[in-house]
Amino acid sequence: MSGVWGNKVKYSIFGESHGKGVGVNIDGLPSGVKLDLDAINFEMKRRAPGQDNISTTRSEKDEFEIISGYFNEKTTGTPLCAIIWNTDMQSKDYEELKNIVRPGHADYTGSVKYSGFNDYRGGGHFSGRLTAPLVFAGAIAKQILMEKGIEIGAHIYQIADIYDDHFDKVNINSELLKIISHRKFSVVDPNKGAEMITAIHNAKEKNNSVGGVVECAILNLPEGLGSPFFDSVESLLAHLLFSIPGVKGVEFGTGFDMAELSGSEANDEFYMDEDKVKTFTNHNGGILGGITNGMPVVFKAAFKPTASISKLQKTVDISKRKNTVLTVKGRHDPCIVQRALPVVEAVAAMVILELL
Amino acid sequence: MSGVWGNKVKYSIFGESHGKGVGVNIDGLPSGVKLDLDAINFEMKRRAPGQDNISTTRSEKDEFEIISGYFNEKTTGTPLCAIIWNTDMQSKDYEELKNIVRPGHADYTGSVKYSGFNDYRGGGHFSGRLTAPLVFAGAIAKQILMEKGIEIGAHIYQIADIYDDHFDKVNINSELLKIISHRKFSVVDPNKGAEMITAIHNAKEKNNSVGGVVECAILNLPEGLGSPFFDSVESLLAHLLFSIPGVKGVEFGTGFDMAELSGSEANDEFYMDEDKVKTFTNHNGGILGGITNGMPVVFKAAFKPTASISKLQKTVDISKRKNTVLTVKGRHDPCIVQRALPVVEAVAAMVILELL
Amino acid sequence: MSGVWGNKVKYSIFGESHGKGVGVNIDGLPSGVKLDLDAINFEMKRRAPGQDNISTTRSEKDEFEIISGYFNEKTTGTPLCAIIWNTDMQSKDYEELKNIVRPGHADYTGSVKYSGFNDYRGGGHFSGRLTAPLVFAGAIAKQILMEKGIEIGAHIYQIADIYDDHFDKVNINSELLKIISHRKFSVVDPNKGAEMITAIHNAKEKNNSVGGVVECAILNLPEGLGSPFFDSVESLLAHLLFSIPGVKGVEFGTGFDMAELSGSEANDEFYMDEDKVKTFTNHNGGILGGITNGMPVVFKAAFKPTASISKLQKTVDISKRKNTVLTVKGRHDPCIVQRALPVVEAVAAMVILELL
Amino acid sequence: MSGVWGNKVKYSIFGESHGKGVGVNIDGLPSGVKLDLDAINFEMKRRAPGQDNISTTRSEKDEFEIISGYFNEKTTGTPLCAIIWNTDMQSKDYEELKNIVRPGHADYTGSVKYSGFNDYRGGGHFSGRLTAPLVFAGAIAKQILMEKGIEIGAHIYQIADIYDDHFDKVNINSELLKIISHRKFSVVDPNKGAEMITAIHNAKEKNNSVGGVVECAILNLPEGLGSPFFDSVESLLAHLLFSIPGVKGVEFGTGFDMAELSGSEANDEFYMDEDKVKTFTNHNGGILGGITNGMPVVFKAAFKPTASISKLQKTVDISKRKNTVLTVKGRHDPCIVQRALPVVEAVAAMVILELL
Repeated sequence: MSGVWGNKVKYSIFGESHGKGVGVNIDGLPSGVKLDLDAINFEMKRRAPGQDNISTTRSEKDEFEIISGYFNEKTTGTPLCAIIWNTDMQSKDYEELKNIVRPGHADYTGSVKYSGFNDYRGGGHFSGRLTAPLVFAGAIAKQILMEKGIEIGAHIYQIADIYDDHFDKVNINSELLKIISHRKFSVVDPNKGAEMITAIHNAKEKNNSVGGVVECAILNLPEGLGSPFFDSVESLLAHLLFSIPGVKGVEFGTGFDMAELSGSEANDEFYMDEDKVKTFTNHNGGILGGITNGMPVVFKAAFKPTASISKLQKTVDISKRKNTVLTVKGRHDPCIVQRALPVVEAVAAMVILELL
Repeated sequence: MSGVWGNKVKYSIFGESHGKGVGVNIDGLPSGVKLDLDAINFEMKRRAPGQDNISTTRSEKDEFEIISGYFNEKTTGTPLCAIIWNTDMQSKDYEELKNIVRPGHADYTGSVKYSGFNDYRGGGHFSGRLTAPLVFAGAIAKQILMEKGIEIGAHIYQIADIYDDHFDKVNINSELLKIISHRKFSVVDPNKGAEMITAIHNAKEKNNSVGGVVECAILNLPEGLGSPFFDSVESLLAHLLFSIPGVKGVEFGTGFDMAELSGSEANDEFYMDEDKVKTFTNHNGGILGGITNGMPVVFKAAFKPTASISKLQKTVDISKRKNTVLTVKGRHDPCIVQRALPVVEAVAAMVILELL
Repeated sequence: MSGVWGNKVKYSIFGESHGKGVGVNIDGLPSGVKLDLDAINFEMKRRAPGQDNISTTRSEKDEFEIISGYFNEKTTGTPLCAIIWNTDMQSKDYEELKNIVRPGHADYTGSVKYSGFNDYRGGGHFSGRLTAPLVFAGAIAKQILMEKGIEIGAHIYQIADIYDDHFDKVNINSELLKIISHRKFSVVDPNKGAEMITAIHNAKEKNNSVGGVVECAILNLPEGLGSPFFDSVESLLAHLLFSIPGVKGVEFGTGFDMAELSGSEANDEFYMDEDKVKTFTNHNGGILGGITNGMPVVFKAAFKPTASISKLQKTVDISKRKNTVLTVKGRHDPCIVQRALPVVEAVAAMVILELL
Repeated sequence: MSGVWGNKVKYSIFGESHGKGVGVNIDGLPSGVKLDLDAINFEMKRRAPGQDNISTTRSEKDEFEIISGYFNEKTTGTPLCAIIWNTDMQSKDYEELKNIVRPGHADYTGSVKYSGFNDYRGGGHFSGRLTAPLVFAGAIAKQILMEKGIEIGAHIYQIADIYDDHFDKVNINSELLKIISHRKFSVVDPNKGAEMITAIHNAKEKNNSVGGVVECAILNLPEGLGSPFFDSVESLLAHLLFSIPGVKGVEFGTGFDMAELSGSEANDEFYMDEDKVKTFTNHNGGILGGITNGMPVVFKAAFKPTASISKLQKTVDISKRKNTVLTVKGRHDPCIVQRALPVVEAVAAMVILELL
């Protein structure tokens, strides 16, 4: 069990959805980094709920308070702890859920693991709200990476059965990433984005939810990051991506579709571009033998549809050990993929910072 | 960088394809485990090359020598180190590769990472041969799990564009796993297996290779294993799976296809089966909130086609920094998926042992 | 670098002496522990400053606020973060110290390590104030241990050249530990305690300070805790003890004096006490081969005299790179040994909880 | 439990005294280091038994075989595994010890920890023989440090009640360290060395043993290494020193004697030596706030007398659960301090390499 991740920089998270707040203690940041608070707030806001009618109406500004490790507007190099205090909690919505576990949620497994002592309100420590401190930490990591020219950007590749354009794994550039990140709904093709929003609305009207896929690119990485065993770039990225609530699949480059290619198709042939080694194609997503090859790192993460839906569902009462039914109350997202984008980018930034 | 994995049990691997041997030091095994050497050898043989005409003709018996931690036929509880000595090496095949890097391989990234000092022969430490000590370690882990009733089994779900039957994620049972593991070509539907073998032969004849997908199930797991952040069952399994050379995608349960489901379809509704909590469906692959729910854990890992092919390919000479072409010599597998099955099972066993 | 310690339970500390507060995030506590807040407050108070005229007059109540991981008066099993907010700070006392480094302090090394960006006020993250979250964490660990019958207690063995009675390493019992811990000045022999207090007063009057030695015993430990390499009980205890500011020596059992014994004197001969294996003597301090043998674990930690003294001292101005002199202002302890007792006990509790 | 240590470089040890051999897998070494095999052999020989009549007559050349991570006489950067095969074992000497545990040894605690399954012959994994791979690993670390100008050297400071001269903690220089390391009996004052040897002979004649203290200095360290919490230089050094069999005390600088100093005596006042910050005295042993200050790091480690003595001792038979007596057979060292010197230096080198 571990709420701590990282080696050079260690992130230790805490908090519950309906407790006092959520936060993270970051140990090992370089000293003297002048934090760009606007940039951090921009990322926090991308993730924050209550911003439009396709997200939960829980209204949290997600303002963070830095407790330590920050002096004269710069990092001190000693542990930086930040808390995002909870403000708009309606815990009574969740009273019923103590024993009547929500399908698709961690209510049941959390209760087993913690012998029923976990804070069940709003999912407690399992809540998507725990991704707020990840976004905070990732925003700092991103800033440090940006100073080295490394850029990270994601788009909504898929919602339900609607697909955005793929990133061009060879030629993806930072201009596109910037444009996308500033779109209210981050897609490459805004027409597809409009269709996706419609799909989300439709799901919402039916008291249902939809899932999707995020595609993310990391640009300008130096060659040679990562390890053969056991800390491949894929291993580290997948480790953190699968920590994000709702992620059920991760693939790099051409991913699962590589299984259908022949070796001669899948091998990314090398060539010299002036004095730089490049590949004509990028099926391997910028990673060979677990190590970056200088091409863009491109990966996808699949999110299941939001588990909280207002439809009547079969479930069990774990105290009475018998079958029952449940209609989940509370304010929920019909789709969390758009809010997950900055989380995906954040954990990617955390991994890359670790590897540098 | 880390060739060490694990917490309660720590695995530290070493070795190169064309050096003296490959091995693993396992620290933290319980004491008093009477090792089933036949079972270990069975697993080693499943992975070993040179067994049929769809694998490399490199002939290695993959016999292991236990150096320490083993006394009177039982584990002592102190570190158990084992070595698989290399015997059938033909290193001259690889001389050319020092500077002319193979597309799709780690030759280039390894050279960058280790500043050209890595053992390039046969891929060196990046070689698939390093999975032999993983299979050894996994066989011990499997034995310990089996004594607790936990079983792990995988099949070849896909080769090129040929698909085996899916595991039934709700009803998969140990009998099927046993049957499959003893098949020479481990599929659910032997007819599909025959087609797959044909596809591999075809690729071989064309000096090409094919990829595929492995599906794996873990049965009889207790509920409550894993953690919300950052050590979800998915995180740990994906971490090790992406350490296996050639893996480019990992998904749990319905995985990427969950993105197209609605919440009401994807949520696995609960019911009481006598006093046991079960789910009607198992889209989540036995894991909710990063924690096992008692249903079978089912996941897939996608393997890219073997990078070593005898076709002429474009590449670069990294010492001369110029373009060139390459025809890879040596003895290669037209497909490594069938040999990867015991490796997938091995790392799954290592993860589950860690979580217990 | 690491502000994180532990494996089964991970402690991640943060904070600065003159920032917003100090705290700790504790990951991996068992769920369902009803916290004894009075017991925690008792420990906090033992460490807190401003309680008598032999400590600093900085007045901090050291009240803690639990942010997470605590629900319905019990631990949830998810990360428990607690903060001790700073209240009585007089930062202007420290302005001068930014560049004029205090002898015996971390001012110089901290400035080098963090390139001058560390919070220098009151020692910043190097302050003894960071031991408050350790005491908090240790109080929880102690409570969990106490439920298993394990008791930890320390006394002031030495101040300057005045020595208290040694613990009887064979027969030390919990009654004595309890009596000592409730004494305002925790010694075995109150007469020696009175002499020590006089010595501290004398030092204070001379604007000077004194050091000392703490002796600590851990009772009722099960046999078999610890490891040969590298996590011996001595290794883990020493690791954390040397994290406490001011500790310069650690010894177990007869410690350095064992160097003068012959083997026949130093070997603790075994005998059966009913069905329990015991030793006649306990020179090894309850640890053989890094592993507990069931006898009391007894160790000592030497504290250097408080570095902050009001005497004029030679030092350097690190911005001007030239010699200067300094009279340290601010409110300081003429002796920190009495306040260090609960810190020593706390880290001992953290180590034993880790080993169970 | 952990036979693995380190973060940037991870050392994983294995082996038993009377098994096939002992060894270490070193993960994370820089690539391209041309190993000085003579220097490694020199260190191995300093530790090896059977070299004179004050050590055990077990004759082991302690030749090492490098299995991996070494190519064209240089490190590859991938894990370097080395084995020292056992050759001169006389296991029958130890048959009796399976149940009749030796006082002062790990026989009893090892049997408890490993439920009687540990290899008891010659102490098994608890044997001092396990320090051979540490010396091997340390020799490589030393070589890497030496290339950066960092030097490590130890002397026998005390045997029984005979004391060598202290190192001059301010002015200790590399010439002296070199001279001492090449002395057959490594002391500053050879007259004291002669007395020590006589004391060892006397103990041997009486079938008894003696203990002692090693003092070690590390020169030319950069300032700023280490951390406040929890990885102070003292914490890391003490952690590994207490892993060495027989160590019962560790102190830095003036250590325990600092408890008797006043603050004004103990504080090492700063001054500028040209542009370098130095201290007039070095009571803190080159470490302030857990971080190096550029002065020599000086520490001592106390070794208890060898537990194996041929005198009749009281003990217990753990299978029969009753009292008995024992005369330890086998070939033993009347003193291990002189052989421990290279081990102390080795772990110091491992720690410093970790911190760089």
